[in-house]
Amino acid sequence: MTASLKAPLDFYFDFSSPYGYLAAEKIDALAAAHGRSVLWHPILLGVTFKATGLAPLPAIPLKGEYSLRDIARSARFLGVPYRKPTVFPIPTQHAARAFLWLNDRDPQQARAFGLAAYRAYFTEDVNISDLAAVLEIAAAQGVDRDALSAVLAGAEIKARLVAEVELAMARGVFGSPFIIVDGEPFWGADRLPQVERWLAESGF
Amino acid sequence: MTASLKAPLDFYFDFSSPYGYLAAEKIDALAAAHGRSVLWHPILLGVTFKATGLAPLPAIPLKGEYSLRDIARSARFLGVPYRKPTVFPIPTQHAARAFLWLNDRDPQQARAFGLAAYRAYFTEDVNISDLAAVLEIAAAQGVDRDALSAVLAGAEIKARLVAEVELAMARGVFGSPFIIVDGEPFWGADRLPQVERWLAESGF
Repeated sequence: MTASLKAPLDFYFDFSSPYGYLAAEKIDALAAAHGRSVLWHPILLGVTFKATGLAPLPAIPLKGEYSLRDIARSARFLGVPYRKPTVFPIPTQHAARAFLWLNDRDPQQARAFGLAAYRAYFTEDVNISDLAAVLEIAAAQGVDRDALSAVLAGAEIKARLVAEVELAMARGVFGSPFIIVDGEPFWGADRLPQVERWLAESGF
Repeated sequence: MTASLKAPLDFYFDFSSPYGYLAAEKIDALAAAHGRSVLWHPILLGVTFKATGLAPLPAIPLKGEYSLRDIARSARFLGVPYRKPTVFPIPTQHAARAFLWLNDRDPQQARAFGLAAYRAYFTEDVNISDLAAVLEIAAAQGVDRDALSAVLAGAEIKARLVAEVELAMARGVFGSPFIIVDGEPFWGADRLPQVERWLAESGF
């Protein structure tokens, strides 16, 4: 038995992105069905918006109202639970930094934290912009709360997240979810069927 | 045999919109499979962009480059021929006005003209912002060239298109393609699977 030479998928997401949440619930199983693993990369849409001149969905006339409807419908379409958070969008630095720190040490635990944070925000209306909420969710996944709290108070993890977002943009990432498969970029939860075909046919 | 009481789908599109073109190649058959007809409504994205503050795709950093790739890939995904036009995007008033005039008189002929104009632009690189090109395409569909030419030179059809776009925006339309099914709005060629399920299940 030899290790697979196939590259993992890169999955970029913002914890405040509902379409990112929908993709997060699907991407690992989709990749696994084609013998692929996934690298999860939290980003900050606030930073990419500055580069692209784009704005958060709710701020856009007509499109904002449509999006709220489309998010809920897309969740039903994909069979993913969803409840509109009271506060949306939110800043997600704490969650993103926590994810990065965990991911360096235990990707499985980071994944569990990431999904738990997404579900807390998008199904239980927990405002995960709060540091306390992030620590609570992490602790529930077995994370050392004091250690994480100390890390999140430091400068190092802040610089790390900045660099991660810069790298993502250098790879062309401008939204969430954004998936890169063997160099091919896919933006949006609605591109999962194309990702699936790409994996099945090694491109099309 | 009684007439169906099911409402037709409303299909909004800009002749310069590649995703509108992809949807145009699919929407009638999709609707027909569920016993529905489609009303085609040409709009002008330049007008909706003013209302939403959005910009044409190629003008947006990162997203613009991605979109060119996504358009070509989405065409392959849907099995629709596509060649990137040399000039993109373009103003499409002439084509939209011609469509409206034809559609009042012969929806079947308008449909044939609309598909022919889309295919000329997105597979043969014909710049359909030119009045002459629009007249040529219409004539090839059996349209009286002189009559159409006279209509397009008049003020009435211009005011009509303005009013049509205003009405579309009053219904929440902000992009192309935009499909409304029994009051439910769907934006994007990538929402066709959701439209299909909506038709099959009378909502979901």
